[in-house]
Amino acid sequence: MKIYLAGPDVFLPDAIEIGRRKVAICDRHGVSGLYPLDNTVDLAAADASLAIFKGNEAMMDAADAIIANLTPFRGPSADTGTVYELGYMAGRGRLCLAYSNDPAIYAERVARSFAVTKAGGGNLIDDDGLTVENFGLPDNLMMIHTLDLHGARLVTPRQRPADIWRDLTSFEACVALAADRATGKSD
Amino acid sequence: MKIYLAGPDVFLPDAIEIGRRKVAICDRHGVSGLYPLDNTVDLAAADASLAIFKGNEAMMDAADAIIANLTPFRGPSADTGTVYELGYMAGRGRLCLAYSNDPAIYAERVARSFAVTKAGGGNLIDDDGLTVENFGLPDNLMMIHTLDLHGARLVTPRQRPADIWRDLTSFEACVALAADRATGKSD
Repeated sequence: MKIYLAGPDVFLPDAIEIGRRKVAICDRHGVSGLYPLDNTVDLAAADASLAIFKGNEAMMDAADAIIANLTPFRGPSADTGTVYELGYMAGRGRLCLAYSNDPAIYAERVARSFAVTKAGGGNLIDDDGLTVENFGLPDNLMMIHTLDLHGARLVTPRQRPADIWRDLTSFEACVALAADRATGKSD
Repeated sequence: MKIYLAGPDVFLPDAIEIGRRKVAICDRHGVSGLYPLDNTVDLAAADASLAIFKGNEAMMDAADAIIANLTPFRGPSADTGTVYELGYMAGRGRLCLAYSNDPAIYAERVARSFAVTKAGGGNLIDDDGLTVENFGLPDNLMMIHTLDLHGARLVTPRQRPADIWRDLTSFEACVALAADRATGKSD
């Protein structure tokens, strides 16, 4: 089973090392991890961003599954590049798995960064007057339920780990889930 | 042509009215707009969020195209629910169109809300030490280039409109693009 390893990990200063660790974990579980930075792109070229897109899309097309890192990124929600990729793989009918290293629910996280109040009817609203989704889920319902229906429930730790960007415990739990499915398939 | 109308519009206090306006614009251009709130869901039910997901997924499956509102939402990037849906429709090979009412580029928007500095090598990094994507694009490259390759370039106004959540000029430009494709198809 080939698994596309999506996440804002690619923006870390030690992105290459994190990718190596993730691929090594996949190897230990008998599955194959495809990490976006393994695409060779000349970042100085004028069309670098398009080359990255094409490389990532080709990698996704070659993969049987995705493991998305949905740890909140620059705000209360997951990284949009990663979320796009989760949607893409769901649209292609592939196995969708994901984890987040922040176990808080979405509405709590919004309240950390924005002035949230209760409107008439009990709805939570932010300072722009927009409703804050409040179903007790860890992020937007489209991501959470696609996992429930097209893969497995979002994996989260009981407590936020000390290094939210480098702790791979929940990632490894996703790999184990994928490996189980791969074995189930070949039985 | 049936078009799924994705966006954080559903979180506005006047979400139903915005949906009516969007569907009316589609009608005027001879295409059919499918607005998520047209799904009838009992919000008090225990499985309300799952019912919303299933309704939206069925609507997307029935649509030939998506017009996504990628106006930044609670941070420098688009709403993750909308981004998921854009990815899903791209994965299914449907026509992908989108607009944003904020014409600023992503790196500028990040600098409005976070302490951004230049690291060695000229990379921009945020206060967590993570690289800020800086290709001169309005949002994450996965969204921007999927539009370029699987639809049309992101539509943005020259200037941010006074009411960023209710100005439908760029939305209508997307509808016109979709209508052109629909006509092209039937020729």
